[in-house]
Amino acid sequence: MDPKLGRMAASLLAVLLLLLERGMFSSPSPPPALLEKVFQYIDLHQDEFVQTLKEWVAIESDSVQPVPRFRQELFRMMAVAADTLQRLGARVASVDMGPQQLPDGQSLPIPPVILAELGSDPTKGTVCFYGHLDVQPADRGDGWLTDPYVLTEVDGKLYGRGATDNKGPVLAWINAVSAFRALEQDLPVNIKFIIEGMEEAGSVALEELVEKEKDRFFSGVDYIVISDNLWISQRKPAITYGTRGNSYFMVEVKCRDQDFHSGTFGGILHEPMADLVALLGSLVDSSGHILVPGIYDEVVPLTEEEINTYKAIHLDLEEYRNSSRVEKFLFDTKEILMHLWRYPSLSIHGIEGAFDEPGTKTVIPGRVIGKFSIRLVPHMNVSAVEKQVTRHLEDVFSKRNSSNKMVVSMTLGLHPWIANIDDTQYLAAKRAIRTVFGTEPDMIRDGSTIPIAKMFQEIVHKSVVLIPLGAVDDGEHSQNEKINRWNYIEGTKLFAAFFLEMAQLH
Amino acid sequence: MDPKLGRMAASLLAVLLLLLERGMFSSPSPPPALLEKVFQYIDLHQDEFVQTLKEWVAIESDSVQPVPRFRQELFRMMAVAADTLQRLGARVASVDMGPQQLPDGQSLPIPPVILAELGSDPTKGTVCFYGHLDVQPADRGDGWLTDPYVLTEVDGKLYGRGATDNKGPVLAWINAVSAFRALEQDLPVNIKFIIEGMEEAGSVALEELVEKEKDRFFSGVDYIVISDNLWISQRKPAITYGTRGNSYFMVEVKCRDQDFHSGTFGGILHEPMADLVALLGSLVDSSGHILVPGIYDEVVPLTEEEINTYKAIHLDLEEYRNSSRVEKFLFDTKEILMHLWRYPSLSIHGIEGAFDEPGTKTVIPGRVIGKFSIRLVPHMNVSAVEKQVTRHLEDVFSKRNSSNKMVVSMTLGLHPWIANIDDTQYLAAKRAIRTVFGTEPDMIRDGSTIPIAKMFQEIVHKSVVLIPLGAVDDGEHSQNEKINRWNYIEGTKLFAAFFLEMAQLH
Repeated sequence: MDPKLGRMAASLLAVLLLLLERGMFSSPSPPPALLEKVFQYIDLHQDEFVQTLKEWVAIESDSVQPVPRFRQELFRMMAVAADTLQRLGARVASVDMGPQQLPDGQSLPIPPVILAELGSDPTKGTVCFYGHLDVQPADRGDGWLTDPYVLTEVDGKLYGRGATDNKGPVLAWINAVSAFRALEQDLPVNIKFIIEGMEEAGSVALEELVEKEKDRFFSGVDYIVISDNLWISQRKPAITYGTRGNSYFMVEVKCRDQDFHSGTFGGILHEPMADLVALLGSLVDSSGHILVPGIYDEVVPLTEEEINTYKAIHLDLEEYRNSSRVEKFLFDTKEILMHLWRYPSLSIHGIEGAFDEPGTKTVIPGRVIGKFSIRLVPHMNVSAVEKQVTRHLEDVFSKRNSSNKMVVSMTLGLHPWIANIDDTQYLAAKRAIRTVFGTEPDMIRDGSTIPIAKMFQEIVHKSVVLIPLGAVDDGEHSQNEKINRWNYIEGTKLFAAFFLEMAQLH
Repeated sequence: MDPKLGRMAASLLAVLLLLLERGMFSSPSPPPALLEKVFQYIDLHQDEFVQTLKEWVAIESDSVQPVPRFRQELFRMMAVAADTLQRLGARVASVDMGPQQLPDGQSLPIPPVILAELGSDPTKGTVCFYGHLDVQPADRGDGWLTDPYVLTEVDGKLYGRGATDNKGPVLAWINAVSAFRALEQDLPVNIKFIIEGMEEAGSVALEELVEKEKDRFFSGVDYIVISDNLWISQRKPAITYGTRGNSYFMVEVKCRDQDFHSGTFGGILHEPMADLVALLGSLVDSSGHILVPGIYDEVVPLTEEEINTYKAIHLDLEEYRNSSRVEKFLFDTKEILMHLWRYPSLSIHGIEGAFDEPGTKTVIPGRVIGKFSIRLVPHMNVSAVEKQVTRHLEDVFSKRNSSNKMVVSMTLGLHPWIANIDDTQYLAAKRAIRTVFGTEPDMIRDGSTIPIAKMFQEIVHKSVVLIPLGAVDDGEHSQNEKINRWNYIEGTKLFAAFFLEMAQLH
């Protein structure tokens, strides 16, 4: 037997068994003839798709380490992607993004953003896909079991930096388009691409571009799809309809710029660390409840309907605890998801300026900066939170009668994002998932901030959906990042099915 | 006029004016003829003494950075000192100290400790002088205005690494001996030297040597003199009769070894930083009062007599605040000295394992170690303090119902040290100071730990005195360390006068 067909059969069988086992087997509407052909094409060409992913992973497009070598790789990556889209027949513009100013005064060129279009039939809906081709740093010596830049398949897992974040999902979308092209089928929707190379470095200059293109490139766009997060399960697909925002605070307490010796000054100073520890200690209690007055005022009340969406989610808490290597969470029911998605949280990240190395040092730090952030949820307002936190810290500090100087600053304010899950593309994505996976998706949110989603919603004013392809254990940003072959190939099918469902529903 | 004589006259005049101005001019008993000759000799040869200090400072005897180059310099330093003592007529043993095991598994040789003897007249007292010839690291790029290893005189200040800590004082003692030798005068006392090269690195292996030599080298020693701290004034000499001890604690809170992302885990964890901040926040209040139950139980009660010793001390609080660049201390009277010397203090040094760099990082540290220490005073007991602190932290932690693991450890326990200020050598030092400086010394303690003082007292069971020579602004361990020419030369005279006073009182 052709080994490809063998793998196909095995993977189909695996899915079938899994669905039976989990009792999730519902009756998906049988795929129409076209879709069947497309799926067949995808299965038959899956090794080519993996090979392309291998070529893309081999490009060390690290945007985090600002050195010329990686920057050159980023430019090469964007050129390869532009070429791929052109060969698909897309009109491609590689937009020059100018230089990136680095903190050390130097500058590096920002890789171009690709704006591409495929089809402009006014009777069809237009879906714009956002993705990024830059990656987090990866160092073989850092615990990677394989070369991070050589995509390596072990037991159906494709290991490599960027495999799941975000090269694999970007290619899955391109693969889906290419299947229609190869079969000489009209694309069911007009498709646009916005692909950047600086996401891991904070999407440098992207917002300005989107703002500038609002009434040009984005004028005909109806829907925006992002596939840059993960499922919350190893096998059950998900659709993401919201993310938390983030307010990042720094609170500096200063006596003087220089440190002191605790022998010669211990006992006579208002020590900045004592002040700071008291300030940080006033923020959150041991049950995770935030103590800043007023902070929960604007949090959307929980409704019966919302509770039901949580009931439908499949979450194996035991498995989650084990894979997280956490002995005990604050909550031992599915309520945990609400605390990740729909309630704010406060985390203390650390202290700059204190003694942070191994060993003992008898220093009294002269100036310390505490860092914490609050994950925001609808309808918390960034500037209201800034005021509440600042007022609270000033209040706590004034009660200490310290002679030190305290300065509170919010260095980052990212709004939460939430979508209407009755939008056309949410319905289309659900139907496509039913078709490909034979199950309802988990309707999830992301506890992290995906600023790009909020940015598109606020600037372009179009419906945004996140359709993740990767499994919960893909390890984005970690050592041994991977995407399962199954997720990559079924994800390609999912996007193809999504195109057809969009055409039907639009 | 001979420029040396000019400088002598100028420096004498300066002292006279200062004493008149400060109303400190009492009538010191006029120095006997011998002392006058010795003082004259010292004044006339002061440029030679400065030249020798310059040669010693030029040796980069950094014991803190464990690299072969500095270690070679340390060996050279000890050889130069041994040679100097031999040329004075001392019997010198350079004791091989074996290897120093470094944390990275490598080892470096420890520079030899010099044990030297000059005179063994059984009718005379024997004074042993402890000093060290290693220095803290110094890097010109780090804010030094002159080359740290080129002794440079500016306005009577001799700038250079080790000038005051501790090469200057060691040489002052040697200079004093050499004056008697040059004048062909018998030494008034038998003199021993113990000089090490690892003090800044924690006096590696010294305690074992002292223990071993307790009944050999130290058997005939009556008194031990150390000159390794500073006055608390720019112009008024001091004698130090006590130091605080130190208990250094680490409190580790661990959820898991890896960090978490605050987006994907914020809100569902007992965050180790929240626990740690609460633990550290329970230690000391905003007035500097330690909150560990029982911690003050063994602190020696304040007596009327002790209050009087503080009254006699000259302390310009305004000047102290300004030179410390501190806007406001916890106390605005001389009580400040009690809080540095005779009351315990608690300082929080920092946190290992949290985010400590500039910028923003949305991390939930998985395992953090808080570091703090308590400066101990008579008669606090190291192991009692360890128990009190551990019990207190366990108590605070258990109330949080956290699922994290907490481990408290005391990694350093140094006893406080206090001497009897009516001992012979205290009286001799006071009289010598009156003779040379025409004033009573400040009777001071040191808020820092000078473990060597306690070690000598505990192992050798002999009276220990600290006779500092350097001014309060000498900046030991800092950039631009210096010793004033005046302190160095008058300090040499002080030690010469001390020899004679010891001979009289013994």
